Amino acid sequence: MGKILMGPQMVLGIRPLFLVGANVNDKPNFMTVVAGGHANGEPPMISVAIGHHRYTLKGIRQNMTFSVNIPSVDLVKEADYCGLASGAKVDKVEVCRFKVFYGKLNSAPLIEQCPINLECNVVHILDLGSHSLIVGRVEETHISENGLTDGKPDVNKIRPIVYTTAPDPKYLAIGQFIAKSYSIGLELKARE
Amino acid sequence: MGKILMGPQMVLGIRPLFLVGANVNDKPNFMTVVAGGHANGEPPMISVAIGHHRYTLKGIRQNMTFSVNIPSVDLVKEADYCGLASGAKVDKVEVCRFKVFYGKLNSAPLIEQCPINLECNVVHILDLGSHSLIVGRVEETHISENGLTDGKPDVNKIRPIVYTTAPDPKYLAIGQFIAKSYSIGLELKARE
Repeated sequence: MGKILMGPQMVLGIRPLFLVGANVNDKPNFMTVVAGGHANGEPPMISVAIGHHRYTLKGIRQNMTFSVNIPSVDLVKEADYCGLASGAKVDKVEVCRFKVFYGKLNSAPLIEQCPINLECNVVHILDLGSHSLIVGRVEETHISENGLTDGKPDVNKIRPIVYTTAPDPKYLAIGQFIAKSYSIGLELKARE
Repeated sequence: MGKILMGPQMVLGIRPLFLVGANVNDKPNFMTVVAGGHANGEPPMISVAIGHHRYTLKGIRQNMTFSVNIPSVDLVKEADYCGLASGAKVDKVEVCRFKVFYGKLNSAPLIEQCPINLECNVVHILDLGSHSLIVGRVEETHISENGLTDGKPDVNKIRPIVYTTAPDPKYLAIGQFIAKSYSIGLELKARE
């Protein structure tokens, strides 16, 4: 099987999609982020990469708090729009008809329609080039009741958006079950 | 729609799965990472969170290089195994029958069977608590020829593994097409 070289590129297969929220000049704003992930186990932390010129970044620096909201596929239009428009020019909350609420941090706006909402305090900001990498400690997690099964978050009810750029930028649903983790790999123990 | 509070938790819906590679004492080793993501646009950078005690982290610190390999669903057994076993005790390359090759960095081992391989130089290591967050600059990208369509990486041929913990830790395939990005959101422009 041959390989081709593509130079330094960010080909990751898939990425999660977040709506990152911040109060900018005391008004809630949200932007779409497909550059982020889990950053620490205990305490739980998340990283999001945001372009230096972005309006949301201004709000994150003002309050040193932000939110991560996970939309379901039903909100794909709004999720795409929040990556196209700037809060410096339009009120995205109004255009998207988001119902905004606040949790324990007061300055991290949360979207009621998103089945998962994380409230975060900023612990690091790294200037990496075109983007700032924001590392936030998760202070509280809100889950919509209709995203739960037996009290636990259920991905089949949350129906998160999967982002890919290969070969063109688009949104996918989650697919079929492949295997349990911490389980199927045990079959290879026999080869040790 | 009601919300319940779950305290500080890492509920992300879905996460990408990486096999992170490093030479430890000059021998290639790989571990499964479901805590990472895109960290910068230009130059392209990636973050991976690794527990302080992990054997792979030792190799990353020795060489200040690492690789990110994206397995397809065909490699789910190996992907799970690399999260269960430690390179301090077993030779995961042998158990998994990985064909290892090197690119321009010489010290970042790559898995031929994985359709995507990124070679990275470490630019930051943040101690965040239980994990170190490693930020790497992507120096070269290798794509398997059979993962391409018209010369571009194609997610339907790469068939990456989607990880979720909701409600139990498991691997999923990618699902159906939902919408084009930078496109479907334009419909909301009429509301501005």
